[in-house]
Amino acid sequence: MNTDTQTLVPTLQTIREARERIGPFIHRTPVLTSSSLDALAGARVFFKCENFQKIGAFKIRGGMNAVLSLPVEGLRNGVATHSSGNHAQAIAYAAREVGTKAYIVMPRTAPEIKKKAVAGYGAEIILCEPTLQAREDTLREVVARTGAAFVHPFDDYRVIAGQATCAAELLEDVPGLEVVMAPVGGGGLLGGTALAVHYLSPGTRVIAGEPAGADDAYRSLKAGAIQANATTQTIADGLLTSLGDKTFPLIQQYVEDIITVTDEEIVAAMRLIWERMKIIIEPSCAVPFAALLKEKERFAGKKVGIILTGGNVDLGKLPF
Amino acid sequence: MNTDTQTLVPTLQTIREARERIGPFIHRTPVLTSSSLDALAGARVFFKCENFQKIGAFKIRGGMNAVLSLPVEGLRNGVATHSSGNHAQAIAYAAREVGTKAYIVMPRTAPEIKKKAVAGYGAEIILCEPTLQAREDTLREVVARTGAAFVHPFDDYRVIAGQATCAAELLEDVPGLEVVMAPVGGGGLLGGTALAVHYLSPGTRVIAGEPAGADDAYRSLKAGAIQANATTQTIADGLLTSLGDKTFPLIQQYVEDIITVTDEEIVAAMRLIWERMKIIIEPSCAVPFAALLKEKERFAGKKVGIILTGGNVDLGKLPF
Repeated sequence: MNTDTQTLVPTLQTIREARERIGPFIHRTPVLTSSSLDALAGARVFFKCENFQKIGAFKIRGGMNAVLSLPVEGLRNGVATHSSGNHAQAIAYAAREVGTKAYIVMPRTAPEIKKKAVAGYGAEIILCEPTLQAREDTLREVVARTGAAFVHPFDDYRVIAGQATCAAELLEDVPGLEVVMAPVGGGGLLGGTALAVHYLSPGTRVIAGEPAGADDAYRSLKAGAIQANATTQTIADGLLTSLGDKTFPLIQQYVEDIITVTDEEIVAAMRLIWERMKIIIEPSCAVPFAALLKEKERFAGKKVGIILTGGNVDLGKLPF
Repeated sequence: MNTDTQTLVPTLQTIREARERIGPFIHRTPVLTSSSLDALAGARVFFKCENFQKIGAFKIRGGMNAVLSLPVEGLRNGVATHSSGNHAQAIAYAAREVGTKAYIVMPRTAPEIKKKAVAGYGAEIILCEPTLQAREDTLREVVARTGAAFVHPFDDYRVIAGQATCAAELLEDVPGLEVVMAPVGGGGLLGGTALAVHYLSPGTRVIAGEPAGADDAYRSLKAGAIQANATTQTIADGLLTSLGDKTFPLIQQYVEDIITVTDEEIVAAMRLIWERMKIIIEPSCAVPFAALLKEKERFAGKKVGIILTGGNVDLGKLPF
């Protein structure tokens, strides 16, 4: 698997190839606007709706691109990952589409609804204790036993190139964006977004939103070196991971700023989008819009694209 | 106001004129599909998303058409109605758009969120006791005092022609529908839908869904005469009214059947649409899809259009 796409920063050509590769397997998601949210924000906001994407989140882009990029012999023994979130579903879905097996290591405490979704795509779930150590150990065992190819959730250039296709579509659909915003967890989406904007619309600024309760990327950018999360106390459960060796340099180079927001601000932004746009987004997904509302003056009158990352939320446990 | 459009059943030409008249003021709403809901339903379902419409519901179509159809002298003194729901917002919004005053009679027990929405469009709210008698008495007083033109929520051909524009768009966007489904309350939407289908796609069948807890339309169709609601015990709070003199004959003539569903079936269908499609719909809006799921065998393999009527739901009081 030691191919160029795995060891080199994605080029514009790599991102274009990723788009062609994953195109038949994903949705071209719509870009929605809301006059009442524009009035509230004091800006013109274009929401790229990845909550309507296959598996309900943008993660299928990176997962699908990584799996489709594997050489035939790499695919033979299946693919594996550890995740309790949208990446698990992405790999399970991608494996099914290409006709190979998926092994998903999940913490035994993961919600039943997430286990069911992964199992629904035909993946084999291997439960482990709910610690990062246990997840990594279990994954290593699974890979050793099965020979499956590991697909990292974000620190992988094939995954980053896949995530970059989302901003590429947005820039195509809405010319002249002055700012593009995305949330940051491990940085796969943000790194890919920043790369796509750099290649396709270099005058556009990229600004991220991050939960204050897991603000490693904000601190990493300020410190000039990867910082670990001091806490992971936030409702934005898709953004708990720290940056990786591949994602951090992209963010350092191409992202202008990261704005942190409290859980109260995240929930308020999420509720606004639910009420005014009538669409379902998960808490992590509301982070960039919360960041825009928090620093409205920076975005006043501007044309802003926001990537709405996903809509997988437990309706039985809503924060309002 | 004694014009042809008010006293005669809308013709195809009347519906076409309504489309042109209201076009600049409303959204052309999208038609969405879901492969997982198709698999569950055993049919190909095309959802016409009026939850994304202005004011969050299809009601703006009829309200806007009625207000725009008023002669200049009829508009001078404003418009009035009684409603605690989406029709109130429709008339308030329409009045603001044409630059006249709206008087909305609402029960004093109506949720604050609905009063705020109506007031937000600049309408004057007149509170009354929460009985139909008090609403009608108060409306009469308001009309006598102000000279405002009354716009009935459904039993008005201008309103029915406005609601018909929704199915007209759906039939244009999705050729070859075998069935079109809508919910039924007072019958304005169902009557308009049935008319549009009759004119534009006569081979297509029209089937309605109705809450079992307010099944007047079902019983009226069986009895061949308008029946009152015996109860209004249902979560589908947009479908509590009985049919009118203008809507019933349209339904009798052009609607093939009405399927009744329990509140449990409504909530289950609503939740499925929220979870699988990531869009917010109100309970009344889930009724036709609940009806389809209840009698799946009737729709097996068919191409079915469903009008999703609205998305105005109190997020603090969800049924799951």
